Amino acid sequence: MTPSLLIDAARLQRNINRMQARADANDVALRPHIKTHKSVAIAQRQRDAGAVGLTVATVREAEVFAAAGFTDLCLAYATVGRAKHERLLALMQRGVTLSFCVDTPAGMKQAATFYARHNRTADVLLEVDVGHGRCGVAWDGTAAVDLARLITRQPGLRLAGLLTHAGQAYRGPTGNETPEAALLRHSTAERDRLLALAVRLRAAGVAGVVPGQVTLSIGSTPTMAVFENRTEEGFRITEVRPGNYVVYDAMQVTLGAAALDDCALTVLATVVSRRTEGDVTRLYLDAGKKVLTTDTGAHTRGHGLLLRAPEARTPLARATIVALSEEHGWVQVDGDAAIAVGDRVQIVPNHACVTMGTQEAFTLQHPDGTTERCAVDARAHG
Amino acid sequence: MTPSLLIDAARLQRNINRMQARADANDVALRPHIKTHKSVAIAQRQRDAGAVGLTVATVREAEVFAAAGFTDLCLAYATVGRAKHERLLALMQRGVTLSFCVDTPAGMKQAATFYARHNRTADVLLEVDVGHGRCGVAWDGTAAVDLARLITRQPGLRLAGLLTHAGQAYRGPTGNETPEAALLRHSTAERDRLLALAVRLRAAGVAGVVPGQVTLSIGSTPTMAVFENRTEEGFRITEVRPGNYVVYDAMQVTLGAAALDDCALTVLATVVSRRTEGDVTRLYLDAGKKVLTTDTGAHTRGHGLLLRAPEARTPLARATIVALSEEHGWVQVDGDAAIAVGDRVQIVPNHACVTMGTQEAFTLQHPDGTTERCAVDARAHG
Repeated sequence: MTPSLLIDAARLQRNINRMQARADANDVALRPHIKTHKSVAIAQRQRDAGAVGLTVATVREAEVFAAAGFTDLCLAYATVGRAKHERLLALMQRGVTLSFCVDTPAGMKQAATFYARHNRTADVLLEVDVGHGRCGVAWDGTAAVDLARLITRQPGLRLAGLLTHAGQAYRGPTGNETPEAALLRHSTAERDRLLALAVRLRAAGVAGVVPGQVTLSIGSTPTMAVFENRTEEGFRITEVRPGNYVVYDAMQVTLGAAALDDCALTVLATVVSRRTEGDVTRLYLDAGKKVLTTDTGAHTRGHGLLLRAPEARTPLARATIVALSEEHGWVQVDGDAAIAVGDRVQIVPNHACVTMGTQEAFTLQHPDGTTERCAVDARAHG
Repeated sequence: MTPSLLIDAARLQRNINRMQARADANDVALRPHIKTHKSVAIAQRQRDAGAVGLTVATVREAEVFAAAGFTDLCLAYATVGRAKHERLLALMQRGVTLSFCVDTPAGMKQAATFYARHNRTADVLLEVDVGHGRCGVAWDGTAAVDLARLITRQPGLRLAGLLTHAGQAYRGPTGNETPEAALLRHSTAERDRLLALAVRLRAAGVAGVVPGQVTLSIGSTPTMAVFENRTEEGFRITEVRPGNYVVYDAMQVTLGAAALDDCALTVLATVVSRRTEGDVTRLYLDAGKKVLTTDTGAHTRGHGLLLRAPEARTPLARATIVALSEEHGWVQVDGDAAIAVGDRVQIVPNHACVTMGTQEAFTLQHPDGTTERCAVDARAHG
């Protein structure tokens, strides 16, 4: 039935293998972020290919993947609130190796007090802002040194490393810049700014910030597309955390981080209505906001890329998903569209990470024509 | 834990009672659309208050609410595809009274063939476009007459009525128009255009289009805010289908269809990070796209209305949710914000119908301080 999520298993595996090969070639551990797929079946493929552990965004995701046997988890999120720490503590007590982020003195103090009271030393990563402007201490200020030093003085915490995410890469090129140049600029900044902070922290005598010991964790799918590791005064990036690359999406194609043929996730939809207005054909699909979401990227066009089913290879010519209702996609085709009510289409969503979470399951399509229904295991918050 | 969905039970009940009273005063049946809440617990309250049945948007929703004992359902959607009709047939065979929409000859023919083959006569509603520009036959053209007549000739179908939704009301005022004037304009068009089509169909001799027999179904939350029924050559609106009114949202406040105090749904979030940049305070919340969604209304500002917790009455002064990441809300406060890392806030989402579906449960807060955890029962497609 439609709408539903399809994942091309061959493309999925190719994406997983390529990212693992890129990590291996750069001598970094790959700790994929599962926020995109939220699926145990996909995480197992990532582990089988060589991932050292997983990155998660929420306590719930940590719990779901721990229950599925993933015992090395990084919660890449500034974690605040007693309820969250209680649930993380429960995971640690069950033997899960787990780290989380801190980026403010207040959040850090709360965590330190909590774990000290429970006679635990929790591994924390100092979250660093390398230009995204979201959470994290600035890579180039004194606050980072002050907070890092403060962490090392807390009995309840151990400074395991530094973590950043160059989310600014999603803004794409500026001015006349090519997409490729933008990717390189962001990837270089992400790497070099984190390395520069590591050098500064060691110079400031912050305990534990030593090459070969400290975790230096970066990564997003666009910055990984062009990543090359390097050494700065003995420090190297040790770990990368891309997530979206398992399936990619229209946003990544626009950014130049993927080709259309790399996109493994599509939304299968049915044309439920059709009208002609002058030179324009209007199609209405049974896929709307509740599966595609209204999310867009910096330079995406419309609400996803429309392909003819079932090949999911050929864009529907001159067609744009111009608007979404909750349960309808509004498609405009310039000219006559050789497509009828009842026909099926596939849509590469703008943003796979939000589309996956709208559904409770997806259909994995194997090259031999067989299919497998898989759960979006960590779909909810809570 | 945060983020999570809260619903104020007193506001919810007040919203339900008011809409029922408005329907009663206008001598129309209220068939609320459950696409907003997807919750059996809330639908039961609507039924207890006097709703005649429910409106649903998907086959899955029909199945979930039928299983919960709601046996009078309207699938307000142009239903296309054999898998969908097979599941609807199964519901009919279990005794559920069910109608669905048709709006194209192709979709209608498919349904007619299907039900005739199964020796059934399915109740269908002709979906009519009164200016929204989405699905539906145009209210003022000959296509509506042709399709209505065609329906009456199919052994597998019975033309039970006409259905429309003035989705254009969500576009809000144009030019110097006040929000109130826009609501009235859209509400009047929705009512009068459907009545006009009924008159035309009777004049054309379309069987079953008779006052007192034919269902004339309209409704959206904004158009219902000012709805007054009237008689046109014996025809009156018989049924209204608003959905969002149970909890309202920032979009409805902007449209003038609700006051802030009517908004029953909020997202509870925690301030996880904070920084000061000159005269601006930046707060980062643990509620992002995956719960608020990026959906906006025509004239909404930011990604939801930010309130101080736990009262959910007082907007946080000079604060705007300027951006969303997947798991972060980016808040800008002009000036110094008396709010710290670890503090909680509540957010009235821009669009409740999409926010509810992101979570598997919500917390109902009773006036006596007790709470109840309720499922978002029909959360998924599939």
